[in-house]
Amino acid sequence: VEPAVAPTDRTRIRRLPEKAVEDRAVMHAILDAAIVAHVGITVDTQPYVMPVGHARDGDRLLLHGSTGSRLFRTVVDGAPLCITVTLLDGLLVARSLFESSMHYRSVVVLGRGTALHGDAKSAALDVLADALLPGRRADARPPTRRELAATSVVAVPLEEWSVKVSAGEPEVVEEDEGWAPWTGLVPLRLTPGTPKTCEGNDPPAYVTTWQR
Amino acid sequence: VEPAVAPTDRTRIRRLPEKAVEDRAVMHAILDAAIVAHVGITVDTQPYVMPVGHARDGDRLLLHGSTGSRLFRTVVDGAPLCITVTLLDGLLVARSLFESSMHYRSVVVLGRGTALHGDAKSAALDVLADALLPGRRADARPPTRRELAATSVVAVPLEEWSVKVSAGEPEVVEEDEGWAPWTGLVPLRLTPGTPKTCEGNDPPAYVTTWQR
Repeated sequence: VEPAVAPTDRTRIRRLPEKAVEDRAVMHAILDAAIVAHVGITVDTQPYVMPVGHARDGDRLLLHGSTGSRLFRTVVDGAPLCITVTLLDGLLVARSLFESSMHYRSVVVLGRGTALHGDAKSAALDVLADALLPGRRADARPPTRRELAATSVVAVPLEEWSVKVSAGEPEVVEEDEGWAPWTGLVPLRLTPGTPKTCEGNDPPAYVTTWQR
Repeated sequence: VEPAVAPTDRTRIRRLPEKAVEDRAVMHAILDAAIVAHVGITVDTQPYVMPVGHARDGDRLLLHGSTGSRLFRTVVDGAPLCITVTLLDGLLVARSLFESSMHYRSVVVLGRGTALHGDAKSAALDVLADALLPGRRADARPPTRRELAATSVVAVPLEEWSVKVSAGEPEVVEEDEGWAPWTGLVPLRLTPGTPKTCEGNDPPAYVTTWQR
């Protein structure tokens, strides 16, 4: 079954619709490049937003966290979620303060989580581990039964989503006439530094070459 | 009047309470170092989470966005908000997958926004501009009346909040006996690249030296 086509009326981009992107491959690439998602839940009428480690597995998004957390107790209950991923790509410096903004790529996913158990849960944890630090799983001690029991893993289908990409040049508008400051872009990137060793000798290649 | 002491029962850190920090100066520093906040609102029972430009102004947090957006229409109405800021500081690589995690600093603020108008709004926009790119305001064209009218600015008091800081070494647990892979940290930092000029000659010093 083909997933529902995004965006729905709930996810349609209303602000700056020219920045809306409907290409599923772009959505996938943003989710894959991000290390952390911000997951929103509602408890009574109060929203809560928490950073959560995620990974994309085909057309679903995997989230994992502690079974003891309020967030995951709510998520495994199938509550409505909003999962937002934002990558900052630069400061866009326009002639005016109003037109100055950011280069960014963001995804908003609405949906509900399904808790995974047994082999499906173990397989999903492998996907999560491989997404964050490919190569590590062969070296690391695998989870014990107790650790598995302490971890919630949920899958959220990538069915209702929107993508926004801001990547253009600074806008020049009529009111800018007569103003000629420098304009341009300061690119931003989450950059790995030199690994710090706690145990062992030289870090393995999957650590020294890690990047996003 | 001293703001209410955080955390309240709604913001008390339950998961990994040893990572909870109750120092207001740490909370301020995290908010000041972040470029974007993730703001959660609830519409009917559905949470929505959006990236928003923010700045701290003393003991309040300023947010700004389009008057036309659903988010800001909800925020200026005084709806309950959750504002979450997350800084990723590194990949923490432990012997086990379970103990491997991130170095991060995060702030969660609960509250309601008050819309600012007139001089208070203009002053808040100056604070927002100076927080993102100090020095720019003297060169840029200031906002017109039309641009001001298209921008919502709200203040949220920093009264109910929690802070979590993960900065330790990888945990070694009993089950790790016999496993001796490399362990350590891959530091992460949002790094500015070489500025790209759109208009003008060399970028000014406040652009070339910008960092977080």
